[in-house]
Amino acid sequence: MKSVNLAEKLSHFSTHWDPHVVADYNENEVMVVKFMGEYPFHKHDTTDDFFYVLEGEMQMDIEGEQSRTIKAGELFVVPKGVVHRPRAETEVKVLLIEPKGEPNSGDSDREAAPKTRI
Amino acid sequence: MKSVNLAEKLSHFSTHWDPHVVADYNENEVMVVKFMGEYPFHKHDTTDDFFYVLEGEMQMDIEGEQSRTIKAGELFVVPKGVVHRPRAETEVKVLLIEPKGEPNSGDSDREAAPKTRI
Repeated sequence: MKSVNLAEKLSHFSTHWDPHVVADYNENEVMVVKFMGEYPFHKHDTTDDFFYVLEGEMQMDIEGEQSRTIKAGELFVVPKGVVHRPRAETEVKVLLIEPKGEPNSGDSDREAAPKTRI
Repeated sequence: MKSVNLAEKLSHFSTHWDPHVVADYNENEVMVVKFMGEYPFHKHDTTDDFFYVLEGEMQMDIEGEQSRTIKAGELFVVPKGVVHRPRAETEVKVLLIEPKGEPNSGDSDREAAPKTRI
């Protein structure tokens, strides 16, 4: 039970698309992650996907809709079932919340990559 | 489905201890709130309590333990059942996540004050 400094946690790794768990909130993992480039289009059938941009700027591409820009200080929730693709031209630092064990790809047939806890 | 600028949302009200809902994440309400002064000691029997400090600095008093300081850029999760009291000498702006319908006081015998959605 202690305060978690997100900038400090982000300083521990430089990999992209590699969420690191920093806290638990009920049945959810609270993570920090760095994005750069684009992730594959995917969806989460049983959960919303919570993004809060800490530093930088990202795009959220939504299937069949106009892309959204999400800037530092802004949050975005992708509702369950919505096909989306996070994308960033330059590195962006993000606070991410998802249920424990949810694969980032939303593909439950694939084993979720074990997430590092820092 | 749009990005939510938290500073912009916070500019809409000046009251303290008055969470405003800005988004939903699964069965949770995502809120912004301003604290100043101290809240009564309380606990939430069935849920953790998620705090992320956006601006300023707050203390989290924990029954029987040393108080924690939570600064801008830091998050803190109060585990369910833990008696706590948020406190701030000067105004602090906070992102708060709790399950829908959870009273801020944790007292389920009291009706939860309806939360404004902005």
